[in-house]
Amino acid sequence: MTQKKNIAIMGAGLVGSLLSLYLAKRGHKVDVYERRPDMRKTTLDGGRSINLALSDRGWRALRGIGIEEDVRKVAIPMHGRMMHDEQGGLTFQPYGKEGQSIYSVSRGGLNAALMNLSEPNEDITYHFNQQALDVNLRENQVQLRNTETEEIETIQPDLLFGADGAFSVVRGAMQKTERFNYSQSYLEYGYKELTIPAAPDGEWLLEKNALHIWPRGNYMMIALPNIDGSFTCTLFFPYEGERSFAAIKNDTDLLNFFLEVFPDAVPLMPDLAQDYFSNPIGALVTIKCFPWSHDGKSLLIGDACHAVVPFYGQGMNAGFEDIFVLDQMLEDFDGEDWNTLFKDFERRRKPNADAIADLAVMNFIEMRDKVADPRFLLQKKIEAKISEQYPDKWIPLYSMVTFTDFPYSYALETGQNQDSIMKKVMKHIQSIEDYNKPEVQQLLQEQLVHKEKLKRYAGETSEVKE
Amino acid sequence: MTQKKNIAIMGAGLVGSLLSLYLAKRGHKVDVYERRPDMRKTTLDGGRSINLALSDRGWRALRGIGIEEDVRKVAIPMHGRMMHDEQGGLTFQPYGKEGQSIYSVSRGGLNAALMNLSEPNEDITYHFNQQALDVNLRENQVQLRNTETEEIETIQPDLLFGADGAFSVVRGAMQKTERFNYSQSYLEYGYKELTIPAAPDGEWLLEKNALHIWPRGNYMMIALPNIDGSFTCTLFFPYEGERSFAAIKNDTDLLNFFLEVFPDAVPLMPDLAQDYFSNPIGALVTIKCFPWSHDGKSLLIGDACHAVVPFYGQGMNAGFEDIFVLDQMLEDFDGEDWNTLFKDFERRRKPNADAIADLAVMNFIEMRDKVADPRFLLQKKIEAKISEQYPDKWIPLYSMVTFTDFPYSYALETGQNQDSIMKKVMKHIQSIEDYNKPEVQQLLQEQLVHKEKLKRYAGETSEVKE
Repeated sequence: MTQKKNIAIMGAGLVGSLLSLYLAKRGHKVDVYERRPDMRKTTLDGGRSINLALSDRGWRALRGIGIEEDVRKVAIPMHGRMMHDEQGGLTFQPYGKEGQSIYSVSRGGLNAALMNLSEPNEDITYHFNQQALDVNLRENQVQLRNTETEEIETIQPDLLFGADGAFSVVRGAMQKTERFNYSQSYLEYGYKELTIPAAPDGEWLLEKNALHIWPRGNYMMIALPNIDGSFTCTLFFPYEGERSFAAIKNDTDLLNFFLEVFPDAVPLMPDLAQDYFSNPIGALVTIKCFPWSHDGKSLLIGDACHAVVPFYGQGMNAGFEDIFVLDQMLEDFDGEDWNTLFKDFERRRKPNADAIADLAVMNFIEMRDKVADPRFLLQKKIEAKISEQYPDKWIPLYSMVTFTDFPYSYALETGQNQDSIMKKVMKHIQSIEDYNKPEVQQLLQEQLVHKEKLKRYAGETSEVKE
Repeated sequence: MTQKKNIAIMGAGLVGSLLSLYLAKRGHKVDVYERRPDMRKTTLDGGRSINLALSDRGWRALRGIGIEEDVRKVAIPMHGRMMHDEQGGLTFQPYGKEGQSIYSVSRGGLNAALMNLSEPNEDITYHFNQQALDVNLRENQVQLRNTETEEIETIQPDLLFGADGAFSVVRGAMQKTERFNYSQSYLEYGYKELTIPAAPDGEWLLEKNALHIWPRGNYMMIALPNIDGSFTCTLFFPYEGERSFAAIKNDTDLLNFFLEVFPDAVPLMPDLAQDYFSNPIGALVTIKCFPWSHDGKSLLIGDACHAVVPFYGQGMNAGFEDIFVLDQMLEDFDGEDWNTLFKDFERRRKPNADAIADLAVMNFIEMRDKVADPRFLLQKKIEAKISEQYPDKWIPLYSMVTFTDFPYSYALETGQNQDSIMKKVMKHIQSIEDYNKPEVQQLLQEQLVHKEKLKRYAGETSEVKE
């Protein structure tokens, strides 16, 4: 067993809160420092939380700490995408096989649940209203300002975890060290949160068990169900241009635009103008960096080292998987050499963090544009048939990312190979029936006969050497 | 003609100094602020200046301001690469066609020459020992500290140019603005400057008109001639590993290593150990960012917005080309809308800055590894023959970058296309004579018949739409 350490986690968000539980389980004493007030006692910031979609990687990490079932009770399964065209017509595309879903959860609700679960643990202490002013990586010291009392305190834990998100203060200190690789890359799109309230009887005004998409080429709106019957909508929209945030200046512009392109949504959005003009425009950033640790004393985790855009629904899932993988590594750790442990961790996770970052940007194009194309949807159906016929050799990319624990980097590479096969197959396909044509079956035989079986990782997420 | 502006340039390096001349030529009043003392009056920092290789883009910018001939007098033409193997055997590979060379120049000498040329201009004023403490982009104000007198001064120019290099303070201010894209990426290699002094009679101890390379797989040493008969050597070496900076701990380690891998250089380096242990290890960083300008009032230029690793010898040349292109744009500028001008400039230059950054990283592999491979050198010879036979359709990538003013992005793309043709050609090649085999000639015919002529840009560097 590993020696008991005093650990400080910066950030009491989803990743920081879950991490505290895993580290306490391993016998460590954990203090969690959060800049904001206790979210359970104050009103939440509105308008800046894209809904979360929990999928297999996230569930696995929740299961590992025994709270899967509690969260399932407040999570809404979404079996697929429901596309809304400009006439209000609907098309449904399942995410995976029968029984496979992603789950809409409330960020605030899940975060509060994690805090409630960890706070009674005598080895876990939360400290709210604690703003990190300065991080000294050499001494592993953090200077904290209590934003209520203005008291300044300096802590010096044995180990420091930066779970403080995309604008991480811990990473900020690492950025000043020598030869730190860093990039921040913004999309030329922002997002705006809007609402479809529940019906007066508390029911959902759109199909409840779906992720709704209004794909419109270079922009889109989505909607995810909440347990109170409402939907949280998010408009992803260019900052500049003919159709953009910049072009919508008043209620009339807004309404004309919505009536033209989202006509079926407008009657469901009584507070559209108020939501639109009071909610901020959120930016969409991808952050990559390396290394993630410093001198065996501090380690970044989650968004702090790999913030991604939200289009694959994997930001939280990837952060939770960080924790799960770290916990697996702690299983075999003798408690001595944290530097080597952190180096192994960052080397193992970095390719996967890069892969999901790139996949998330790629999926934006799929969601806002391709899902409106009948031919693309036909291709998805054909791919489902291939996967059904060759279950050991073919899993669609989306399913690998969402419903397996294959490393993201392996999923990306395998998905690209499958994509080049799909291109060949689709040359022979005009309708779903064409799947049974001899030339299609022949082609698949040729392409797949030498393909290795996909490897299940049975709970272990590790680098794949091919 | 454009209205006379008060312009501040941050940084009196190569780009800042040359830019002052171009802007003054356009009728503006220019103040140049430099953090360091006047380099002409103090000893230079030793040990951190990789020698510069001036090539066509750089010459063009010097010509535009009428100092080409002065600089030629102190520049040493290098006609090609001289490779040194582990037995001291030599192989020469010309850079281009007969008469095409790159030129070794002293960074300090060239910088001093540019200052000497600009300082007498009554519209240009240099201010040394001026450290920029803070840049307020909204007000276009810079707070400066005089490092000699400790006086603090705030300037507010009409236009602010950030020519302050890879660690630009002006860019630092832009990084704090919303949605600024930024990346810094370090190689896992550092560099160390070493010296081969002149012979007692002042002559060069190695071939004078060549860039010398000791390629050793994953590391290398290079040497460039100086006008005093010496060579400045640079060792590019991993930070960590079996053969690395970390592994060389004392004089014995150093000498054993050098005798084993650079045996012909050791007798020429009497101060090897002293140079090695007193000179710092330099880091090799690529910096990319976007945008380069803010609100039509400030603009980054040169390394400040596109620092590259030194392996293509294009860092200074690319910075000088920035100036040349900007000056061309000023030719047709009515002096009104600087915001649009700066936006056009950054949009035009950014793809080229990205391309040379990527090319520079790629060329490291060529220099340290491939040039030691006889088959690679044979391929270069074959490529020279193709270029000779099809001069309108084929220019080797190195030549496009070094000896033309084709946009870097066009050179990169064309080079990649040519590379895929070379792969096919080389399957038929065992010796230089095989170039005349019918199947090779036939293949080239097929590959090149539909290829468009390469476009000469006749002094204009612009984006190419293909």
